[in-house]
Amino acid sequence: MKKVVNDYIHLTSQSEVKRTKFGARARRLFLLKSMSMPVPRAVLLSIDAVRKIQSGKKIDTKGILAVFNEQEMFSIRASPEHWDWGGPQTILNVGLNDVKFSTLKMTLGETAAVKLYLRFILSFSIDIMRMDEHLFEDVLSEEPTDSSVALALKLYEDEMLSPFPQSPHDQLEQVLNSMIGAWSSTTARILRKAHNAPENAGVGFVIQCMVMGLGKRESGSGIVQFINPLDGSKQVTGRYLSQSQGRDALEGKSSLFLTKDARGRSLEEHMPEVFEQLCKFGNDARFITKDELELDFTIDGKKLWLLDAAPARRSARAAIKVLVDLVQDEIIDKNTAVKRVEPRVITELLHPQLSPLAKSEVICRGVAASPGAATGQIVFSSKMAQILALKEKPSILVKLETGPEDIRGMHFTKGVLTERGGMTSHAAVTARGLGLPCIVGANALKIDLKEKRIITKTGQTFNEYDFITIDGTSGKVISGKTDLVEPAFNDGLKTFLRWAEQIANLTIRANADTPADVTVARNFGAKGIGLCRTEQMFFEDDRLIVMREMIFADSNKERKVALEQLLPMQRADFMKIFKIMDGFPVCIRLFDPPLHEFLPRERQEMLELAEALDLSVSNIIERTKELSEFNPMLGMRGVRLGITLPEIYEMQVRAIFEATVLAQKSGMLIVPEIMIPLVSTQKEVELVKVSIESTANAVKSETGTDFKYKYGVMVETPRASLRAGDIAKSVSFLSFGTNDLTQMTYGLSRDDAGRFMRDYVAKEVFNEDPFRTLDKDGVGELLLLARDRGRGQNPILSLSVCGEHGGDPTSIKFCCEAGFNYVSCSPYRVPIAILAAAHYELGK
Amino acid sequence: MKKVVNDYIHLTSQSEVKRTKFGARARRLFLLKSMSMPVPRAVLLSIDAVRKIQSGKKIDTKGILAVFNEQEMFSIRASPEHWDWGGPQTILNVGLNDVKFSTLKMTLGETAAVKLYLRFILSFSIDIMRMDEHLFEDVLSEEPTDSSVALALKLYEDEMLSPFPQSPHDQLEQVLNSMIGAWSSTTARILRKAHNAPENAGVGFVIQCMVMGLGKRESGSGIVQFINPLDGSKQVTGRYLSQSQGRDALEGKSSLFLTKDARGRSLEEHMPEVFEQLCKFGNDARFITKDELELDFTIDGKKLWLLDAAPARRSARAAIKVLVDLVQDEIIDKNTAVKRVEPRVITELLHPQLSPLAKSEVICRGVAASPGAATGQIVFSSKMAQILALKEKPSILVKLETGPEDIRGMHFTKGVLTERGGMTSHAAVTARGLGLPCIVGANALKIDLKEKRIITKTGQTFNEYDFITIDGTSGKVISGKTDLVEPAFNDGLKTFLRWAEQIANLTIRANADTPADVTVARNFGAKGIGLCRTEQMFFEDDRLIVMREMIFADSNKERKVALEQLLPMQRADFMKIFKIMDGFPVCIRLFDPPLHEFLPRERQEMLELAEALDLSVSNIIERTKELSEFNPMLGMRGVRLGITLPEIYEMQVRAIFEATVLAQKSGMLIVPEIMIPLVSTQKEVELVKVSIESTANAVKSETGTDFKYKYGVMVETPRASLRAGDIAKSVSFLSFGTNDLTQMTYGLSRDDAGRFMRDYVAKEVFNEDPFRTLDKDGVGELLLLARDRGRGQNPILSLSVCGEHGGDPTSIKFCCEAGFNYVSCSPYRVPIAILAAAHYELGK
Repeated sequence: MKKVVNDYIHLTSQSEVKRTKFGARARRLFLLKSMSMPVPRAVLLSIDAVRKIQSGKKIDTKGILAVFNEQEMFSIRASPEHWDWGGPQTILNVGLNDVKFSTLKMTLGETAAVKLYLRFILSFSIDIMRMDEHLFEDVLSEEPTDSSVALALKLYEDEMLSPFPQSPHDQLEQVLNSMIGAWSSTTARILRKAHNAPENAGVGFVIQCMVMGLGKRESGSGIVQFINPLDGSKQVTGRYLSQSQGRDALEGKSSLFLTKDARGRSLEEHMPEVFEQLCKFGNDARFITKDELELDFTIDGKKLWLLDAAPARRSARAAIKVLVDLVQDEIIDKNTAVKRVEPRVITELLHPQLSPLAKSEVICRGVAASPGAATGQIVFSSKMAQILALKEKPSILVKLETGPEDIRGMHFTKGVLTERGGMTSHAAVTARGLGLPCIVGANALKIDLKEKRIITKTGQTFNEYDFITIDGTSGKVISGKTDLVEPAFNDGLKTFLRWAEQIANLTIRANADTPADVTVARNFGAKGIGLCRTEQMFFEDDRLIVMREMIFADSNKERKVALEQLLPMQRADFMKIFKIMDGFPVCIRLFDPPLHEFLPRERQEMLELAEALDLSVSNIIERTKELSEFNPMLGMRGVRLGITLPEIYEMQVRAIFEATVLAQKSGMLIVPEIMIPLVSTQKEVELVKVSIESTANAVKSETGTDFKYKYGVMVETPRASLRAGDIAKSVSFLSFGTNDLTQMTYGLSRDDAGRFMRDYVAKEVFNEDPFRTLDKDGVGELLLLARDRGRGQNPILSLSVCGEHGGDPTSIKFCCEAGFNYVSCSPYRVPIAILAAAHYELGK
Repeated sequence: MKKVVNDYIHLTSQSEVKRTKFGARARRLFLLKSMSMPVPRAVLLSIDAVRKIQSGKKIDTKGILAVFNEQEMFSIRASPEHWDWGGPQTILNVGLNDVKFSTLKMTLGETAAVKLYLRFILSFSIDIMRMDEHLFEDVLSEEPTDSSVALALKLYEDEMLSPFPQSPHDQLEQVLNSMIGAWSSTTARILRKAHNAPENAGVGFVIQCMVMGLGKRESGSGIVQFINPLDGSKQVTGRYLSQSQGRDALEGKSSLFLTKDARGRSLEEHMPEVFEQLCKFGNDARFITKDELELDFTIDGKKLWLLDAAPARRSARAAIKVLVDLVQDEIIDKNTAVKRVEPRVITELLHPQLSPLAKSEVICRGVAASPGAATGQIVFSSKMAQILALKEKPSILVKLETGPEDIRGMHFTKGVLTERGGMTSHAAVTARGLGLPCIVGANALKIDLKEKRIITKTGQTFNEYDFITIDGTSGKVISGKTDLVEPAFNDGLKTFLRWAEQIANLTIRANADTPADVTVARNFGAKGIGLCRTEQMFFEDDRLIVMREMIFADSNKERKVALEQLLPMQRADFMKIFKIMDGFPVCIRLFDPPLHEFLPRERQEMLELAEALDLSVSNIIERTKELSEFNPMLGMRGVRLGITLPEIYEMQVRAIFEATVLAQKSGMLIVPEIMIPLVSTQKEVELVKVSIESTANAVKSETGTDFKYKYGVMVETPRASLRAGDIAKSVSFLSFGTNDLTQMTYGLSRDDAGRFMRDYVAKEVFNEDPFRTLDKDGVGELLLLARDRGRGQNPILSLSVCGEHGGDPTSIKFCCEAGFNYVSCSPYRVPIAILAAAHYELGK
């Protein structure tokens, strides 16, 4: 009988229970039982046994039922390998039949007996045999009596063309088979996959002797947990209901509170000994299972039983609090705490969330492009967002798509909604950088700019200044105002992240462009700036006009004059950034975007510009036309501009060095890192290097101050990856701009991919959106190839990723494995990145 | 004295002369001398000796001058390693000084002596000492006398502050040093580079005893060659002038013709024996030097001397004729003939050329985008080109840039001129495919579409219907009509190419999209179609409207209805193509471009379309907006369309298979090759493969006919190259679309690169335009990597290049070395490609 013992065991067979064999629920119950808590007798069906059943083996009902005596009923609960993989609903009172029903009527009284048998007949019919719930309307509408039972049994027989099964063996077999089938269903598989369950996720079962919760003496059932599910603070929460089973207490109007409560009666007052016992069990269970639990308990003739235990329900913020408390109570160590939080959970804590209690009317779904929720008045221009912001009124910026000219407006709005675009469109990338909730690709909405309104698919209209809410976490656009839960970057989270940081072996930097962004990055724990996009500084009003002057300059000389006006502004920005980062490294990328991004697109703005520059509108239009490109992504930008119009880089480099000198004079040690974008040949790197060196020498001799700096390349083209060996000879670092590198490796524009990305992921052409998770097989190979060639030529070459992938846990794992020095991501993803890096170390 | 012997030798020292040591001119003179022809005594200065002089060694003038007696003068001629590497101008009469001048006056008479000395003084002053030519105006303006010599000597002394050198040793040293300096000058280096000379190209010198050509008895000099320089036919051409030196005969009004001529006196009549001797020498020289020569001869007292020999001047067409004749006369073998023609020379023969005799006013220079010259009336739209064509009037299509909607118009025009774009812009690529002369990026011209005119930088205006000429070989735009030389794809060239084909070990296919293009390709010797861009068939008027219907279809069903109309048209085209190619393989690429390329851009056309499709104009505008893309190159096109709108590929594949069945029924054996574009993952390849297989099975069962086909991938993304191992498992061929692959590897749009490409090549950031010559180090590595991975998984995998590079000799060499199966290029480059492939074999 050894073989059978492996398949199912008594809950008391200590040596046999291992989490991986019987599932998480079985293991928890085993632990409770091992502390001598009053857990009813049970048989555990192992995961292997279930697999055998799935592949055709008959269930050994005889062996299982040998544990129970003939009068007993039992519950059947799924016990998945991991607690959050879901599982089919629990079935109670299995084993009940006409004979036992007669007996129960005598022992518990008719009401209780009817209640028990009806519950089983209905759940067997509906959950197990998949009968239509509506068939039982008549049974449910009347006060349950003996005749209700008769009616239910007749309905069953009429529909199924066979009588309700009377043999506990048959019942057990059918219930188990149905539950195992449900576990393998497509829906269940998809739900599990969202929780990272593997394709072959296993499930065991707990077949437990029923404790009734109904009967003559005080009986009933309840649920308890010992923390507040919203914030994780210590608080006994739950309900208890006399003469009930399962989770009835949660719905029953006459349920008791557990602790003393002004609103009504409580278990604490009503049965203080039971309450005290429950609290003690709760405390013990927390120690033995090393987690906060939710317990299903039943009182059977005043005796307390613990039927089931599951991890207590908790919000993301509560989860962190629970873990910090467990560590402080020395129940788990820091590593375990860090390991238990999925990095993406942190996202919720950094952004406002829709209140779980709020009711909402969803008018459309788009691409969830930047997490968090926001409520505000609709505006259709950055200017209007700014005007409302001055009046301290929240706005949601609604546009077909955003462009660089909207960046300023995005600082003034609470959220962004665009009709077009995908995960890596301008709106999405910028919003994530700013930590601004954002939905893109909401193409079920039509934006009517002329009439200043939005029209939904159903014809509903929203005008300018109407309130809407967007949830950038789910992609839902919601009508009107909605209650929000504020973010929780609190002490608990900070403590938790500090632990993660101590474990992690990868530096996390942030992509931040302005002193304001840099401040956020620092607050979130960034240990440096990995990507400071200097051109972002040029979009502010006063700078934009000078920038445009520069673009319209007719000669190198005029261009220099315009650039000289920008120099002190950039220098001042760099000074501030150096100060905020207080000695942490700052990597500054020189000018990157094509010049046409700085030119106005709309007629009115063109008129204004013409006037400001004393040019004709046709001049403006012509220059705009001249600079327009077929494929701006692959055009005249980055180092190509740096080489063709060298004055721009010269100004920027001078601003960096002058800021460095000033910072040094005020006592800081700054070694700025200068990075050039869109490199495809070593010669580009060399040409700029020579120019930077000459500016460095000029500033050194002008100021009489020596300083150091680092020079590096943003690797964004496949060619730069292939030629990393050459390039590494001239630089001290390579930082992979994986957004562009992905675009070029796939030949896929992130702005245009939205149109088919969902289709492509659904058809599994792409396993994942390669702009979200680094494509290990293609882009990843280029990274490794560049690493090997680069370090082959320059063993101390620093390597990093500064694309969007820098904040993606899977991609971070890749960087850890690859031995990179750091990743850099948007400030709001820094905590996630820290945690992901810690997870990698713990999982090694 | 062994060392000296290596540095300079007598022309008669047979064992010492080798081409690589003394240069091509020395070798030719040596060969003539070895046939006992009357070549004057000479010393050869070796290339090594010159290198030593360059690195500071003093010239051993004593050793050199030992060959000549004291009264003799000598000429100094450069002898570069390869004949077409240029070299400094020849200097005559070196060694002349006041003393010899006095002697000469007595022996030759004053006139002759003055002429000789003046020639030397002037060329020494101007060519060697770099004095300003204008200084000698007074000397040149008067009849040369004794006092002219005195004046010239004085002018020299005044300017140089030292007397004219009298020592032959000094003269020799200064002349040689100056000529060696000129050889190393930047200008000379750039000129040589255009002829593929290496950086360290060497030069030797011939120092030859002067035969005067002046004197009392019949003396004079002349030039002769034995072929017509325009067509290469046998014809004695040249001039002779009594009492002259050097090349004076070519300018002298009293020069004699060589053969009897109605226009004047001839050497043949005047000195029949000398003429006969000259012809005999010419014939012997052709045999010994294995080439047609141009001989510099001098008659000195009736005695004929041969001073110099160079390859005869010849046009490209003459060059082919000469080689074919040399082979037929068994003077050289076919390999030698093939080796002697630079592949790019063939271009000239396939396109009309500007007549070398025509005078032309160049109004602007643009990018020489497609070779050949064309004259016609300016038109600003494809429609007008078509209207003029109907009236048999030639037109030049002038546009800002062209788009797919212009393809039809381009069939009707003689040449294309665009203001924007680079070597690989739409206009350039299409024109090359059509063999149509084209200039792009002519941004010095302003095209004023409103007023229908072109304005040049100087303000000159050209209206619609004015004549202009474009030379797509040089990039020159010329005012008015110009005489053209018609192409010469004649029997000689065909014979020549057949020899090349026999040598080559790489198949040459052509990129051709329509039956007309395919016919051209076949005529030019293409051994298959490597890229048939099926969508080109959709731009014809009747098809374009159906295509647009398809784009505006609301459902899969409507889309299918539209596609069903296109099916018979495509099938008929494929039938024709199969028939023309007569069993040679045809590789058909499925639909590639983004749909918006098929939509109208101008208001009028939109109105027409709205009417045709019974839609509102706002519908048209909206759909156009919906389909517009930020970076079309990286957008919704290629296999991405094929997977999202599978009906398009299904229709195309069915058309291919139905045409195959029909062709088979008419007795041809067709194995069509189906290729899908813009692949980035293996899954894409698999999805389309399944769909193609199912269409194949359907057609087989409907027609009851079996057929075979090949399936492959156009590798255009870096990722497809990296994943070639996976992909190769599902396909029988990979064809590299190196245009797109280059764009993506560099992150460089070919349409936008024009703006800085010239700058980049000039600054040597790119050694060559990577769209013209395959970038070996980046793109090339991806090709080799894909080859290794692909053939690793599928050893019989066929590999090829079907981008523009398929017609570039350097890139073809790469493909030969890489062991590729074929290259495919535009029909007009097929002969060049054949020759390049032959050259590779010969150079191995």
